[in-house]
Amino acid sequence: MFSSETVISDLNKIRSQAPLVHNITNYVAMNITANALLSIGASPVMAHALEEVEDMVKLASAVVINIGTLSPAWVEAMVRAMETAAEKKIPVVLDPVGAGATSYRTETARYLVGTGQTAIIRGNASEIKALVEAGTRTKGVDSLESSQAALEASYQLSKKFGVVVSVSGPVDYVVKDADIIGVANGHPLMPLVTGLGCTATALTAAFAAINPDYLQAAAGAMAVMGLAGELAGESCAGPASFQVAFLDWLYRLSDKEISARLKIK
Amino acid sequence: MFSSETVISDLNKIRSQAPLVHNITNYVAMNITANALLSIGASPVMAHALEEVEDMVKLASAVVINIGTLSPAWVEAMVRAMETAAEKKIPVVLDPVGAGATSYRTETARYLVGTGQTAIIRGNASEIKALVEAGTRTKGVDSLESSQAALEASYQLSKKFGVVVSVSGPVDYVVKDADIIGVANGHPLMPLVTGLGCTATALTAAFAAINPDYLQAAAGAMAVMGLAGELAGESCAGPASFQVAFLDWLYRLSDKEISARLKIK
Amino acid sequence: MFSSETVISDLNKIRSQAPLVHNITNYVAMNITANALLSIGASPVMAHALEEVEDMVKLASAVVINIGTLSPAWVEAMVRAMETAAEKKIPVVLDPVGAGATSYRTETARYLVGTGQTAIIRGNASEIKALVEAGTRTKGVDSLESSQAALEASYQLSKKFGVVVSVSGPVDYVVKDADIIGVANGHPLMPLVTGLGCTATALTAAFAAINPDYLQAAAGAMAVMGLAGELAGESCAGPASFQVAFLDWLYRLSDKEISARLKIK
Repeated sequence: MFSSETVISDLNKIRSQAPLVHNITNYVAMNITANALLSIGASPVMAHALEEVEDMVKLASAVVINIGTLSPAWVEAMVRAMETAAEKKIPVVLDPVGAGATSYRTETARYLVGTGQTAIIRGNASEIKALVEAGTRTKGVDSLESSQAALEASYQLSKKFGVVVSVSGPVDYVVKDADIIGVANGHPLMPLVTGLGCTATALTAAFAAINPDYLQAAAGAMAVMGLAGELAGESCAGPASFQVAFLDWLYRLSDKEISARLKIK
Repeated sequence: MFSSETVISDLNKIRSQAPLVHNITNYVAMNITANALLSIGASPVMAHALEEVEDMVKLASAVVINIGTLSPAWVEAMVRAMETAAEKKIPVVLDPVGAGATSYRTETARYLVGTGQTAIIRGNASEIKALVEAGTRTKGVDSLESSQAALEASYQLSKKFGVVVSVSGPVDYVVKDADIIGVANGHPLMPLVTGLGCTATALTAAFAAINPDYLQAAAGAMAVMGLAGELAGESCAGPASFQVAFLDWLYRLSDKEISARLKIK
Repeated sequence: MFSSETVISDLNKIRSQAPLVHNITNYVAMNITANALLSIGASPVMAHALEEVEDMVKLASAVVINIGTLSPAWVEAMVRAMETAAEKKIPVVLDPVGAGATSYRTETARYLVGTGQTAIIRGNASEIKALVEAGTRTKGVDSLESSQAALEASYQLSKKFGVVVSVSGPVDYVVKDADIIGVANGHPLMPLVTGLGCTATALTAAFAAINPDYLQAAAGAMAVMGLAGELAGESCAGPASFQVAFLDWLYRLSDKEISARLKIK
């Protein structure tokens, strides 16, 4: 059963074990995702060269694959990293950034999901829908739909590929087979900070590194995101001071706040 | 006639329409320009792969071309993006970062301007001068001259290529043919935050996306930059807290502040 | 003799001369290192294309080579930049980010050191040890050892290659031949901000640009890092507000604070 106890226990594990999370991610979000992983107690590393990607995965406890600023050379490294993660049996968390916006993104994201080497897919509603439906509309990398609108696509993806699907929105939904967890924390400024979706993906990998129940791991990450966002929203003057407070709260978040504030649906 | 009413009206259009701005820009400034576009109400996307650059331009309302960390593969994507933008008749805003510093930058910038597919060129004085004069001195990516010193070069560029030229400095000048608008807002800490010039370029694209009078659009962006800078300067302890406050003010800027503070010359 | 007077004098030189520091560095740390260089009064530029790397080095007063997100094309540019710097007799500061984590990083870092074109090597203890010892353990890009544990390796490197070695940790040690300077300032939040090691490297290049005694230059940079960190730690709520305050303090640091607080060991 997923509860605030699960989140507290997992967060404390991350803080004590500092799992190494290997990220092949986009240029825009690299800095904030590295800082978010450090704030939560994990240890981030970014490496994309074919010359070292396998060696780095071998050191890691989880791998993030994020196609936010993809190009053929980077996709090749992603494929290699995912193969190595599969051999090593560590979780891969995929963020199909902008799937639906261009056919290159949609096809790359579908190809990566199709390898069967993904443990968790985390995206916004438009991106998740674009993985299963033709003609999904999207606006660059921003979602045009509510997370609820992507539930059917999430169940389909989960069933077909045996993955957990995590869809962010005012309520975040995490789906595995017939199971679903909703997390209703968060703040309206979150979509105004670039890379917060990518940050959710990176934190999901940190949770998956220490909790083999990937449904719970994905929900735990969204819980921590939403709680830090909610707390940050109480003391900010706009999106940039919100981002600073958000990262501070990832670091400061205590058992007490998690128990008192977590809204599971 | 450009006035605070123009800025208010354009800013409100950006906030209600959230135009998609496609950026092919440098690694240093990607994060802050994405955040600035979000703060102002626009929707940023970064994409540079030849495999998707045309598809992404087709979704966008304006394109930013910024040569801050250029390389041949990226320049190829820039050319392709500009061609697609020209076909689609959406504005391209070019930032010739570091033109004058190396011949590769100067020649690339001149080549891109020479295609005739640029609507607005936005740079500092050294960069603008380097586009028309041989032997312009520059110091990496920082200007060695006042914006006023680049006025003659701006008029030349505007006449020759039919573009708007926007030169940043203590007074920002925006030039088209014989027309000129000066904006005298801003703050001395602005040159101490990396990527604020690139941010001005990105905001210029957001304004050009919703106002087909590119002289006014370029001036509106500099107005908003200067006003947010001025307000940020009133409550900061150094360049980093200035940056946070600046992005917050892009989000918070109200009609009242624009009317009360804008200094048009 | 290294003292607070040295640091004050060097910092004032940087602020008045604004030396141009050319960085070939990693995607994660580009933004913060550029901002840190601006805050301290230097002028940063990032350029990695073979087409311009020599021209840019010719304008610069110091060069940073940082392998944090290396790939073959970037390493080629690094080699070219180092050769040009050697011809021009300006200092190269090398950051062997993640040496020891993968053999590609270890070998690349050793190769670059082996060219004999490096003035200062700045890294954490694991990285410095990995340059001379086989089988050094490391965890991605985070150190597993204290700076003291890398002293023997530092002396070896200094002797063999005629370089200054700067090892960061709770006490930072800077070594040249038989000389050693320790700086005991700093704050426990520093390892929780991504790119602060890279920032130390960039500031070291700024100091080396204006002080030809590279032992003192390297110690001066660590002094300023530690002092800004210490002051930032007094007024922050977590790692992100710490980073903001840290960059502000690089800008605000006065002679008085340096005299009163610097702890040389």
